[in-house]
Amino acid sequence: MTDKLAKILTAATTCIARSGVRGLRVNDVAKEAGVSSGLLYYHFTDRAGLLAATLEHINKQVSKDDVPGSRTTQNSGKHLRHLLLDEIKDDADVRRNSVAWNELRACSIFEQELTEPLARTTSQWNSEIAEAIRAANPDADDDQAAVTAEILTSLVEGISGRWLSGFITTEHARSLVSAAIDSLAASRPLQKVPGQELGA
Amino acid sequence: MTDKLAKILTAATTCIARSGVRGLRVNDVAKEAGVSSGLLYYHFTDRAGLLAATLEHINKQVSKDDVPGSRTTQNSGKHLRHLLLDEIKDDADVRRNSVAWNELRACSIFEQELTEPLARTTSQWNSEIAEAIRAANPDADDDQAAVTAEILTSLVEGISGRWLSGFITTEHARSLVSAAIDSLAASRPLQKVPGQELGA
Repeated sequence: MTDKLAKILTAATTCIARSGVRGLRVNDVAKEAGVSSGLLYYHFTDRAGLLAATLEHINKQVSKDDVPGSRTTQNSGKHLRHLLLDEIKDDADVRRNSVAWNELRACSIFEQELTEPLARTTSQWNSEIAEAIRAANPDADDDQAAVTAEILTSLVEGISGRWLSGFITTEHARSLVSAAIDSLAASRPLQKVPGQELGA
Repeated sequence: MTDKLAKILTAATTCIARSGVRGLRVNDVAKEAGVSSGLLYYHFTDRAGLLAATLEHINKQVSKDDVPGSRTTQNSGKHLRHLLLDEIKDDADVRRNSVAWNELRACSIFEQELTEPLARTTSQWNSEIAEAIRAANPDADDDQAAVTAEILTSLVEGISGRWLSGFITTEHARSLVSAAIDSLAASRPLQKVPGQELGA
């Protein structure tokens, strides 16, 4: 992705996180990104195309931050925990992405054009988590890993909603996700992440 | 609650489920309920008061449908499952309540006046589920039951969002909730997470 495209999609995320999807116009995003509306229509065709690209852009943020390392079972347990817990932390970018994702998810009930791109990005996320579960727990079969992944990603969405509206703290939200990973994603307890303090 | 108040709150739920919270006016709800706006202002003071009462009204629907029965541990297990699974089913009232709740939850990130009533009704829901967990699993201590309740109600919210936007079927959504109940709230005690403060 070019820097300019990334800048446009970050601007779209910022606009959605600031005032929601309903009423969002392509012009607002162009203004936020400091480019012409024509450029946005050229790259994304229409508002629906822009929103779909924004969903994919948000979805890629956490995976992109992934720390490379050897994939032992112990490291894989860390990787799974990292992938899920990094959705909820005291970081302006993470919070902005989460607000925008939450808003796009909520609006998809009213705006049909969001359904397909949201289903696609959610499937990608589920697959990524299922793969991390299988890597962390070689005893888990594929079906079991897929179900657990769906439960964990749904849980992250549910908990994020409460976190973003200020009902629970970042630390508490992360501890709930962590407790669920321990109970659901391990026939034996996953290795704890040394040095990773909850809420850090 | 009088029939007239219930009718107004059902009308508010219908309006929110149809076109969202943003842009919702007290007048729209009065028209849907077939009463004067003055009556709504008399009972609920303002739009915020109406939304808060609507949240509580939605929250009470599932508990109200509760089937009475003797509270053996086995029946208590059924009661817990019933309380959570009845949030997701092919029933027009359940779907309408779920769309409205999901929308109010999402808007609370942007509308501060929703935060307090939403926190209150969510706490009530958590307590109700924690109580059902303790009844179903006498070995669970209060802290464990509270954490499990928060995880399960957050999960129901996350899964409901996907169900309502048509990404997963009713049957699949219910099977995910059911699998999570089996893993998290089964009769064996949950694993304690050492060194983690989960109370907030």
